[in-house]
Amino acid sequence: MSSTQTADLTRADFEALDQADPLATHRDKFELAEGLIYLNGNSLGPMPKATLERMQEVVGQEWGQQIIRGWLESDWVNLPLRIGEKIARLIGAGPGEVIVADSTSVNLFKLACAALEMQPGRATVLSEAGNFPTDLHVLQGIEGMTGDRMVLQTTEANGILEAINEDTALVVLTHVHYKSGFILDMAGITARAHECGALILWDLSHTAGAMPVDLNAAGADFAVGCGYKYLNGGPGSPAYLFVAERHLPNLQQPLTGWFGHANPFAMSDKYSPDPGIKRTLCGTTPVLGACALEVGVNITLSADMEEIRDKSMRMGDLFIQLVEQQCVDMGLGLASPVDAVARGSQVSLVHEHGYAIMQALISRQVVGDFRAPDIIRFGFAPLYTRYVDVWDTVHQLSEIMTSRAWDSDEYKRKAAVT
Amino acid sequence: MSSTQTADLTRADFEALDQADPLATHRDKFELAEGLIYLNGNSLGPMPKATLERMQEVVGQEWGQQIIRGWLESDWVNLPLRIGEKIARLIGAGPGEVIVADSTSVNLFKLACAALEMQPGRATVLSEAGNFPTDLHVLQGIEGMTGDRMVLQTTEANGILEAINEDTALVVLTHVHYKSGFILDMAGITARAHECGALILWDLSHTAGAMPVDLNAAGADFAVGCGYKYLNGGPGSPAYLFVAERHLPNLQQPLTGWFGHANPFAMSDKYSPDPGIKRTLCGTTPVLGACALEVGVNITLSADMEEIRDKSMRMGDLFIQLVEQQCVDMGLGLASPVDAVARGSQVSLVHEHGYAIMQALISRQVVGDFRAPDIIRFGFAPLYTRYVDVWDTVHQLSEIMTSRAWDSDEYKRKAAVT
Repeated sequence: MSSTQTADLTRADFEALDQADPLATHRDKFELAEGLIYLNGNSLGPMPKATLERMQEVVGQEWGQQIIRGWLESDWVNLPLRIGEKIARLIGAGPGEVIVADSTSVNLFKLACAALEMQPGRATVLSEAGNFPTDLHVLQGIEGMTGDRMVLQTTEANGILEAINEDTALVVLTHVHYKSGFILDMAGITARAHECGALILWDLSHTAGAMPVDLNAAGADFAVGCGYKYLNGGPGSPAYLFVAERHLPNLQQPLTGWFGHANPFAMSDKYSPDPGIKRTLCGTTPVLGACALEVGVNITLSADMEEIRDKSMRMGDLFIQLVEQQCVDMGLGLASPVDAVARGSQVSLVHEHGYAIMQALISRQVVGDFRAPDIIRFGFAPLYTRYVDVWDTVHQLSEIMTSRAWDSDEYKRKAAVT
Repeated sequence: MSSTQTADLTRADFEALDQADPLATHRDKFELAEGLIYLNGNSLGPMPKATLERMQEVVGQEWGQQIIRGWLESDWVNLPLRIGEKIARLIGAGPGEVIVADSTSVNLFKLACAALEMQPGRATVLSEAGNFPTDLHVLQGIEGMTGDRMVLQTTEANGILEAINEDTALVVLTHVHYKSGFILDMAGITARAHECGALILWDLSHTAGAMPVDLNAAGADFAVGCGYKYLNGGPGSPAYLFVAERHLPNLQQPLTGWFGHANPFAMSDKYSPDPGIKRTLCGTTPVLGACALEVGVNITLSADMEEIRDKSMRMGDLFIQLVEQQCVDMGLGLASPVDAVARGSQVSLVHEHGYAIMQALISRQVVGDFRAPDIIRFGFAPLYTRYVDVWDTVHQLSEIMTSRAWDSDEYKRKAAVT
């Protein structure tokens, strides 16, 4: 980055911000080792302390003591709807529009197929080039399966509005880009899609829990999202999906397993879909994962989403400002929007030795991550990240760059996991 | 049932069998309340005591302390294959042929679509009328999605061999019937399918863990199965799937999520399937559920499968014999094969007041279950069911029938859950 003149910040400024932070008390709800600066909540959120206790209860008491009766006595049977309705409040959806099920990938498959079914004369599904890989991969799977029925088209972010036309059946976009943190204009793109008769599906994996989003205000048709990032649901947590109420009566999705049946325990040979959102369920609810997810969702619901967004934007701004101040002429570029309004809850930097730099940071207990070929990502999760963490991160980064500590065999390439 | 003359058994005979039972020591590995007779492991297995400890470790230590590093440091990334290879040993499959993923329903969808892809000139998928509902429902979903490409045909069990012909693309059967416990002839039906150029997919949900099964000896093409019945993986446990090695290079399944990619963390726009069984993965591995499943699978692996089957058959035989002895002329019919060789690890009885009878049993701590319209099921899981449980169950049943204790408002109809 190039140096720009700003009033030099000091660690004391960050300590003062933490003192005044209305969200500060949430940090203690998470398990975070002393000395660890965890900036990877955009990949996997840390464990809420209450989850450990809840899992003991679910496993030891509910499953352990009730066994099969847990489905009714512990209301496992309603977990998908119950947690879905909680998530709905975080993403601008109504009751009966959101449900917890399967993985983000599987849910995207269901809804993209359902959307195609609603658009008999149209074959094009439009997405963003460089979208989160699984979104594109799942669409390619549908393309491969359906022959000519569906054609995947991708375009750069700035070409999306123009690319939507009368051939577009469905637009599939990730609201906050996983690499850059760039926010797409949900309302504007949704309006454009509808103007052309297209449907739209938003992937909220990098949005939900980190900023307000209002699916119904935007008129969105469908959405999916994952539970293990800012919702802190645990590794491989069940995902969720949203279907606008107006589409529910006609929604036909192909993964018609028994939990989507209007009356699963009639044990009927003939599939007959639940009248509402439960028709998007397929197999048996993953109870352990769902109960862990609920704990994370509850914590997010207990905080004020506007405060979350304010702190997130401010942390990002300060991070960028500090990097400009402390990492002058070190070859670091900004891969995220400088404008907080256009940026999700992460800041990405670019450097040709990004991988080694991130390894050096991790060895100093600053955990962000790397995305090939040259992106290092810093996620700021307002519920547990402190302002001083922002200061300390840039301080470490600056030292690593100055000392070339990254230039070591120790930090050679190994596999990364999001 | 009608009374037949057999030497009358006494509870002491059952105590003696428990004394001599080589599997008796496994019972203590499970959480089972004092006084509870749990005969519903064919629906949801009880909690292995070690699972509680393991979940504390996975949540508190792995996720809690390692957070994102858990994917590598705790080898979460290899859970699907690692547990899959353990399950493979229970079902006659080789390394690299079984993987843990998603739900049974989702896995069936993947493999049925993949099979259709391999059978371009054939449209018929044959299944059994009255098969476990989700199997038929999932196939109906594929039928609805693909238009004329696939037609579902169902037939009674005794008509299967005859119904397979040159139009059959795929045969989808559950090895052990969930209601009756009737075992289909895997080797014979598989051979007939192959003779006609059809592929075959076996659902092992009511088989695996309760009896030996040898997919490769039978030449099976595909299989799916659930983790929460005899494998004791917990409510909504991840499921597994099997693909015969010969089919892997050509297997194209439509749920192409990023965990099925040859190199997921290359984050490439283009889907490129893993060369092996991992191409059947879709979304991010459900780590909590998978780790719980592994504990259950480990226990089953620690026992001798021939001993499991011997005990299972003997318990079923004794149960039938006792019912014949103690429940004479009470209107109870046998809905399972009388011949143990043809019967899975359960015995089902039929009675017009089956629901109320099972409620009365449950209120006396004998937990089996009910399947509409008139079936009561008793699952005998040899790892934790004692011979005296068989005796005590029939004793309670006899008392309930004699006293008409079932004929009470208290046992009126409520929802049942498998």
